[in-house]
Formats: sequence, structure tokens, C-alpha cells
Amino acid sequence: MIIIGELLNGMYKEVGKAIVDKDKAIIQKVAKSQLEAGADALDLNCGPVSKDQISDMKWLIESVQEITDKTIVIDSSKPKVIQGAIESARNKVIINSTTADVDKLEILVPIAKKHNCGLIALSMDKKGIPQNKDQRLELAANIIAFCHDNDFPVNDLFIDPVVMPVNVAQLQLKEIIESIREFKLLCDPSPKTVVGLSNISQGVSNRSLVNRTFLVMAQEAGLDAAIADPLDKELMDGMITAELILNKQIYCNAYLDAYRKSKI
Amino acid sequence: MIIIGELLNGMYKEVGKAIVDKDKAIIQKVAKSQLEAGADALDLNCGPVSKDQISDMKWLIESVQEITDKTIVIDSSKPKVIQGAIESARNKVIINSTTADVDKLEILVPIAKKHNCGLIALSMDKKGIPQNKDQRLELAANIIAFCHDNDFPVNDLFIDPVVMPVNVAQLQLKEIIESIREFKLLCDPSPKTVVGLSNISQGVSNRSLVNRTFLVMAQEAGLDAAIADPLDKELMDGMITAELILNKQIYCNAYLDAYRKSKI
Repeated sequence: MIIIGELLNGMYKEVGKAIVDKDKAIIQKVAKSQLEAGADALDLNCGPVSKDQISDMKWLIESVQEITDKTIVIDSSKPKVIQGAIESARNKVIINSTTADVDKLEILVPIAKKHNCGLIALSMDKKGIPQNKDQRLELAANIIAFCHDNDFPVNDLFIDPVVMPVNVAQLQLKEIIESIREFKLLCDPSPKTVVGLSNISQGVSNRSLVNRTFLVMAQEAGLDAAIADPLDKELMDGMITAELILNKQIYCNAYLDAYRKSKI
Repeated sequence: MIIIGELLNGMYKEVGKAIVDKDKAIIQKVAKSQLEAGADALDLNCGPVSKDQISDMKWLIESVQEITDKTIVIDSSKPKVIQGAIESARNKVIINSTTADVDKLEILVPIAKKHNCGLIALSMDKKGIPQNKDQRLELAANIIAFCHDNDFPVNDLFIDPVVMPVNVAQLQLKEIIESIREFKLLCDPSPKTVVGLSNISQGVSNRSLVNRTFLVMAQEAGLDAAIADPLDKELMDGMITAELILNKQIYCNAYLDAYRKSKI
């Protein structure tokens, strides 16, 4: 399971202020804390505070690259921000994200191909968020077909079923888990799958419990990656134990510690 | 999810002593504590201390029936014990358990039919515990065919894939989860499914974490019931949250409390 740390996002107060003030120490502290907790990659999102998103994203990328070689995830809904900032990246990159809309795919798939990087694609389009599994699968199939037609390796594609909050769209969560299972069957080699985990518990009580319960269920369905809070120890414990049950980590009495040590 | 409390088992020191001493107060205390924690049914197992298992099982049944109307699960590997003790039951009963062996099915299916009760059937036989999903499905299909031939309603059948400890049979756990999913597809109406949950963590570190992680994954695969420790609050929280995600409990901010209140 690839855990993409979600905390370097300008919507969080401390990080937003650090972006405005260009306070690199804060950014690097948040980056380090996530890596030490077991994050495999770091999501970077300028958030609503940014006045010049390309310049701020470049600064975030450079600040993080000073302290780690791990994958950076350039997170923006604007293809221009990704296009403008990606030149600053030396680490491995995942672009976050395109939708199934052809105008976005036409910009972002060639960039991902040129830079030999991963690409997160949301199974949604301009019409909005799909209401069931079949709509998600149709959009995912369109994305995969576009990648095939443009010689982008599907193995570098991360399809995101678009997770909804349990208090808003409770009926959809089982459909989302089933979508993850079926995304993996759409082609061979399979696309990877990813979720923005914390969305499931926006405005919900027991957030950590809801997050980790959904994550474990999604892992069983074949989830490859989650954008999540690696500082949530119980979430990470659940994730590691699910890997154990799925035979992706070898059992030993100290399997939690062994996993964490392997990440540092 | 039907939670069958596992604690009234003679292998536990306090319960074993109470069975030998015929100390009803202890048995009723353990029964009450499980029911208050949300158990839907209570497993009764005399354990290794019992010298006269039929008489001890009858006494256990009568002791528990004095304080609850909830389902009792008569747990013995010996058909004679079940046959001898079941006459004492006034509450709804689940028999635990038969295997796929015809000599056991020939005794226990007619008893379950006569008493209009549930029947747990392990997907194993005299040859031992199956090593993969296909063997489990073959044995489950044999059990279902026997029930059909003998007019026992499959809806009252609980098929158990036989859970193995993660430190002994790590490779099998994913197969076991897949077995649960596929047992449900063997016929229509589906059989129910059940696991002896704590088996997964026998001799394993982080027992509660391993138990609850596996339970949540199995729920997603369609598990109907688990023999488990209802006093493990984190296990129950995970189980309730999985029900929420699977849309079997309606979301409200106090969904954990609401679930628990509904059980008392």
C-alpha cells in the first residue's frame, strides 16, 4: 500500500501560513513528520491561500526535495499549475489529478508521459460525480482507452473512484469499494487504484475510525494507494495489519515495528 | 452482523471452574456482560473440564435461559452432546457444528430441521482443513446439496470457512475471505456465513487489532455472523462502522451509541 501523506495542503492553517510566508522550516517539518510515520509519498497542494499557484507549487516542491528523495504528488485541479511546476521536480512525481474529461486528458497524459511519472485520474467528468459503480467503470474505461491510444503505461495510472462522505452518500460507499475491485479487472496489466481517504469522513463523527475501517475494506478490494494522514497511528496500524492479512507483509511478532522500520 | 459471544467456554478458567462447581451466578454474569456489550447470541461450550458433557451443556443452557431470550449456540464437536442437550432449549438455537462429513450431517441436519434451528457447518471433513478456496467451495457445495436433499432451509445454514491463525497459515487468509464471498453465490437464497474470529490471532501479537481488521474485511465480503468477544470494544466499534459503510446501519453522529442501544 502506497501511503501518500495529505498534510502538506494549504487548506491547513499552519501550512497555508507557511506558504504565504515562504517559511520552509514549517513545510520541511510537516514533510519529515509524515515520512517518519511511514508515508511513501507526499501530496503537495497550495490550497486556497495561494495567489500564484505555479510559483508556490515550485517552492513547495523545492522545499520538500531538499529533505527527501521520496515521490512527490503535485496536487492541483488546474493543468496549468501542474504543467508550470513539474519542471522543478527531480524526485519521482505523481500528477494529481486529471478527470475523464478529454480536454484535461489531452494536456495531462502527454505531460505524465514526457516526465515518466504517475497520473491520478478521477472517475468523474464535467457532468459531476457518478452515482453508481457502472458510471465509475464507464469513466475509468474511457480514461484507460485514452492512455492506451496515447501510449501512456496503464501501470502508471492511478484511478480514483471519488470517495464521498458517509453522511452524504452512504449508499455509494459499497459501490465505491466494488469499483476499486472492478477497476483492477478492466485491463491487463491492471491500472493502479487510489482514494482520497479523508473525504469519507468529512463532517462525520469518529473520523479516524471511519477512515481506517473504509481503508481496510478497500485494501481487501485491491486498493493500491491512499492519500491519507500518516500521523494517524491507528490508521497506519490497521493498514499494516490489512497488508499482513493479505499476505503482503510477512508475519512476525513485531510486524508493526518491522513495517515502520522498513520505511525509514 | 450477528455477533455470537464466545466467552461462555469451559476453556476459560473462570467459566471452566463455574461449570465444575455449578456456579450459576458466574455463568449468568458472563452471559449478561456479553449481551450488554451487544452480543446477539451466546455460544455455550463445556470445554475440556466437563466430565458429563450432555448434563453440563443442559445446565449451561438452563442457566443462560433464566436471564435472556436471545439465541443460544450449542457448541460441541460431538453430535451426541448436541442431541442430548437440545431438548433443554426454549430459546432459538444454532447448532455449532457439523462438518461436511456425511455421518455428521446425517445426525445433525435432521436435528436442526426438527428443532427449526440454525446450523453451523465447517467447510472441512475428516481429511482435514482445506488448503485453498476451491476445496472450501467444494465442501460447502456438498453441505448445501445435503441440506437441499433433506429439505433443510439453506437460509438457516451458516457455512464457516475455518479461519486459520495468521502466524500459521498467512497465505490462506485471503482465500478464506474470498471463500466467504463465493459461499454466498453458491445458491439462491444464499447460505449464511460465519467465522470463529479469534482463531485468526491464536498465538499472535496485537490480537484485537488482527481480529478487528480481519472482521471488517470479511464483512465487506458478505460475512453474516462471527463468534467473537463482544467485550472487545474496539472490535465492536470496527464492526459497527463496517455496517455503516456497508449501509446496514443508518448514519447519525451517534451511530455507535445508537447501535448499542438497539441491542439492549
